Formats: sequence, C-alpha cells, structure tokens
Amino acid sequence: MTTPKNDLYLKALRGETVSRPPVWMMRQAGRYLPEFMELREKYDFFTRCQTPELASEITVQPLRRFGMDAAILFSDILVVPQAMNIEVEMRPGFGPYLPNPIRTKEDLGRVVVPDVHETLGYVFDAVKMTLEKLDNSVPLIGFAGSPWTILCYSVQGQGSKNFDLAKSLCFSQPEVAHALLQKITDTTIAYLKAKVDAGVHALQIFDSWGGMLGPEDYNEFSLQYMRQIVDALKDLAPVTLFGKGCWFALSDMAETGASALGVDWTCSPRNARYLSKGKITLQGNYDPARLLSPVSRIKADVRQMIDGFGKDRYIVNLGHGILPNIPVEHAKAFIDAVKSYH
Amino acid sequence: MTTPKNDLYLKALRGETVSRPPVWMMRQAGRYLPEFMELREKYDFFTRCQTPELASEITVQPLRRFGMDAAILFSDILVVPQAMNIEVEMRPGFGPYLPNPIRTKEDLGRVVVPDVHETLGYVFDAVKMTLEKLDNSVPLIGFAGSPWTILCYSVQGQGSKNFDLAKSLCFSQPEVAHALLQKITDTTIAYLKAKVDAGVHALQIFDSWGGMLGPEDYNEFSLQYMRQIVDALKDLAPVTLFGKGCWFALSDMAETGASALGVDWTCSPRNARYLSKGKITLQGNYDPARLLSPVSRIKADVRQMIDGFGKDRYIVNLGHGILPNIPVEHAKAFIDAVKSYH
Repeated sequence: MTTPKNDLYLKALRGETVSRPPVWMMRQAGRYLPEFMELREKYDFFTRCQTPELASEITVQPLRRFGMDAAILFSDILVVPQAMNIEVEMRPGFGPYLPNPIRTKEDLGRVVVPDVHETLGYVFDAVKMTLEKLDNSVPLIGFAGSPWTILCYSVQGQGSKNFDLAKSLCFSQPEVAHALLQKITDTTIAYLKAKVDAGVHALQIFDSWGGMLGPEDYNEFSLQYMRQIVDALKDLAPVTLFGKGCWFALSDMAETGASALGVDWTCSPRNARYLSKGKITLQGNYDPARLLSPVSRIKADVRQMIDGFGKDRYIVNLGHGILPNIPVEHAKAFIDAVKSYH
Repeated sequence: MTTPKNDLYLKALRGETVSRPPVWMMRQAGRYLPEFMELREKYDFFTRCQTPELASEITVQPLRRFGMDAAILFSDILVVPQAMNIEVEMRPGFGPYLPNPIRTKEDLGRVVVPDVHETLGYVFDAVKMTLEKLDNSVPLIGFAGSPWTILCYSVQGQGSKNFDLAKSLCFSQPEVAHALLQKITDTTIAYLKAKVDAGVHALQIFDSWGGMLGPEDYNEFSLQYMRQIVDALKDLAPVTLFGKGCWFALSDMAETGASALGVDWTCSPRNARYLSKGKITLQGNYDPARLLSPVSRIKADVRQMIDGFGKDRYIVNLGHGILPNIPVEHAKAFIDAVKSYH
C-alpha cells in the first residue's frame, strides 16, 4: 500500500503535527448531493451497494465536488447481517426492515458466520475499483457497524427510538444475545481484514446505538466486542470508534488501542478531550442540523470548533451523518472553512 | 396545603436526611398495568386526560398496587400545545400526530397564549379530585413538557429520531423559533401556577428531547426557557428538571433554582453527582428496559444504585418512562427493593 498524496487524515490518526486538521463528513456520499440522487433514482439501495461500478462512483462523487481529505466506501452496515443469513430489506420512506428478526435461541440457529469472500466479495471489488478512481489522491476508509448496533437491527427488525426489543433480548436472554454478538464480531473481523487486504487505508466502526445502554451494560454488550475488533485489526490499519451518545464510555474506548474516537455534538471540545483523557485523536462533532444555519455562521462555527479541539490530533467531521435537506453550498462552506483554517 | 402523611419525597426535594430514599416511576400510570389497560380499552387518550374522574382514577391505580411515595397526575405534555390552538391527535400504534405543524411565521400567527382556566380547567379539576382520593397520603406531582420539547412536536408534527424539522426551524428561522418558545413558556407558567393553586405539591418539567441539542444550542433553545419557568414557580412549589440525554447541561441546570434534577441511565451515579456539582437532589436513573431482568437482578441493581447515589438528596426512579412490556411483578420488585432498603 502506498501513501496517498494527501495524507493529512492518516497523519492525524497517528497523532502527528499537521498544518490544518483533515476533514470529511459522515454520509458524505448521500442524498444531499444531486449527482447521488440521479443514481438513486435509477438503482435501488442494494444494487448500489452490490455493484462495484456504482459503489465506487458514489464514493468519489463528493470528493470531486468538495475535495475532502478522505473517502469512505459507499456501503451500509447492514450488508453484514445480510451476509449472515439475516434477511434485510431497505424500504423507501421507511428505512431498513428485517422480516425475520432474531429473538430466540431457535432464530439464532439460522445465523451463520459466512465466508466473507463468498458473500461480500462485491465490497472488496468496490474497494479496488474505488482505489483506481482515487488514483492515490486521498486515503480510503472502510467501515462496519459495531456488533451491538447490528444486534439492535437484527433483533428489533427495524429502526426504533429505544430498541426495546433488542434490549429485552439482552436483559432477559443474555446468553442468546452474547452468542449473536460473538457471531457478528467474528464476521466483522473477517470482513474488515478482507477490506484491508483489498486496500482500504483506515477503518471506522459505527456504534450508532451505543447510547441506548448505560455504562455497565455498554461494557457488557458493546465495548467488549468492539475491543475484539480493534485487537484483531489495529496492527493492520488505524481504527476509529464512533459511538453516538457514548460520552460516558470515551475513557474506556480510549484504552482499546483505537487510533481515534468519534464524538457527537453533545460533547463540547473541552468535555471530549477531558472524557477521552486528552491524548487520543478525536473526530467530530458539528451538529448535522447546524448545516442549515447561514453560511457565515457555519464558517465561524468551524473555526471555533477547530480552536476548541486544537488543530492536532483532530479530524473535522460532523457529529453524525449529513442530512438530506442540507444545501450543497452549506456543505461546501463547511469543508472550505476547514481547508482555509490557519 | 397540608403536608402529606408520607413526606419522604418532599423531604428529599428539600435535601433533608431521610431513613430511605423515596421512590416513584416515570409513567407509573401506564400500559404495563392491567387496570390501566381496562380503562384504555374503554376510553380514548384525550377522554382519559380530559375526564377528571378517569384521570384521577388512573393516577391512583399504581399507588394502590405498589404504594409509591408520590403520585403524578395522569395527563400528557401535549395538552399544552392543544390549548394553544395547535391541533394534536393521538393515533393508536403511531403516537402523537399534529396535522398542522408550526413551520413558518404565518403558522406562528395561529398560536395563542390561552387563558389556562378556560382551556385546561379539566386538569385542575383532576388535581382536586386526585387529592381527594389520595386523602393526604402522599404528595401529588404536576408536570409539563419543556418549551423545547413542546416545540419539537409542534414543528415536527410527530415523534422523530432526530427532530430534523424542529431543528431546521431553530437554525434557519431562529426568530420564529424563539417567538414560539416564548409563547409556550408563558402558557406553561400560567398552567403550572394554576396546578399549584389546585393543590399539587411539586412540579416536574420533562425535557424529553433536550439531548438532541449541543451545549450552546441547549442554552439558547431550551435552558433559558426552563429557567423562566423555574424562576416563576420555585417559590410556589419545588421544581424538578428532567432532561433526557442532557448530561452536558447538568451543571447549568443545577444553578437554575430547581430543587432536583432527573438523570437518565447513561449517567453513572458518580458522574451524575460530579456533573451536577454534588449538592442538588438527583432523581433517577434505572434503565426502564432493565426491568426485564430477573427479579433478583433488579433488587441487587436497586441496592447498588442507592449506594451509588447515596440515600440522601436522592429520589429513586427510572431513567425514563416504564415500558408497556414490563411484568407487574418486576415493577413491584423495583419499588419493594427501595422500601426495604436500610
């Protein structure tokens, strides 16, 4: 693997001094982009994920327009449970729907730890095709959901404001929950290793629903499995852990061997540094809805945010994925404000 | 107003030493109770809220069964926007639906600050009837939503995982948002004053969606309005502020003059005491889904939680409302574990 020409993102992950922090945006290849919407109208969700030509094109679209410092492979965290024999549908206007959720020991019997090359080969092909398109300009990030977050969808069967059914399984049948979490973890490790083999430069784990758990339950049902993933991958590629709502776990997450931690916008820069013990690289944390503010406000906010986190050991990002209703020129203002920071 | 025979809850609010902490449960008059479900099958949501005989009966149902240390008047935070000329429907299986949400300056023109005695008189009647039924046994709590949380529903028009439309209004038309927040605040103050006049012993403000905002936006769009409410009410009755996901604001909330702060289960007892500066009474914070654990685990958790918070300046509660699928005997184990604490 050769170092990309723009290696700001990799330097920040290693904690090296940089002239300005790198910037990318979670869900940067998304519905706020007209060129993404064109492909979305022609091809359904899983066709876009499973067709390397489409996934790689979608991945590089935002870079052509805005010139972020990193690309993240267009895909979805739910391709993993899909590969594990858990059926996943993406229903327009509704979101993910899993018609046969995992709620009993019998259901668990259906769940397999697959050969990732057989089931997810299209992802690794998309990585290779994307690397060709990037032509060594910026690093490519590969990602996966955390085992806990994948369990949430696999058990609940759809999005939820409290994932009560997922938590019910954990608290009333913990042995079933742990067996499912271990199968997801084993699959995720194989999946991310194969992504690194295919050429991604860095990895990010999305624990989107970690904030549903209290601190002790977080350790039991989420963090111990992310720790297994970091242990298995950290010598192959730098790993970023992003737990939405997981402020209470930042201190433990900082001890996992991860290279960086993502934080959401409820953490002030000062709290984020304090809670993560001040040493690890942090990534975040602009409120995605704040991109609806006037451009002048966005630019001022970005400068204040960088001053708050400090330019080193810091990767500018949103605190969660960009929203579909963000004007393109507001996204541009966000990126430009970082690139002109001095 | 005479002091109820069991005044543990009021003592804890005043920070006095108690033999054991008081206990009640958010949404204790709720769907997990068979006697509540009987009334729910006969009467629709707003009939239950608006009929003092029903609201008072539902309020005392959980006390008959479990003997909590406080009652909370059965009602809903959305009766306030309803009184402000914002139509609110409660759709079975869907939740609140507001067919004409407030999204422009023109929409705002429709919103009134009502005479609460004309529009919400049924609530004050329910307070008086409940006090008769309680016969001075335990204190009665009256509640309202925070202005921010009421704005969330009034603008979004329904529940949401990120209240993107509500935040859009705040960030792109802040003057409209602030005018709406002030109308809600003025109505809420009049509403809570009238509740105190009717005889409630204490008040709680539910900022259910405060955790959607970052710290600066929280101060601007939520806390300053709750501060107005506390200022207007604190000399009339003790006020508890509960902000779900608002760990980052506990320090500022502790300075408002509120008697107590509610915390959710992502705050360990130690973090909650630290973030609230160690002096104010705290209320919470058992994960409602954890009531699905075996009874022996619930009892051990409750003891550990009380030990963690300390028996004084502490009110045992859940970290959010009880879930409909909690077995009655598990709720009983939670209450009993507190009452047998020594």
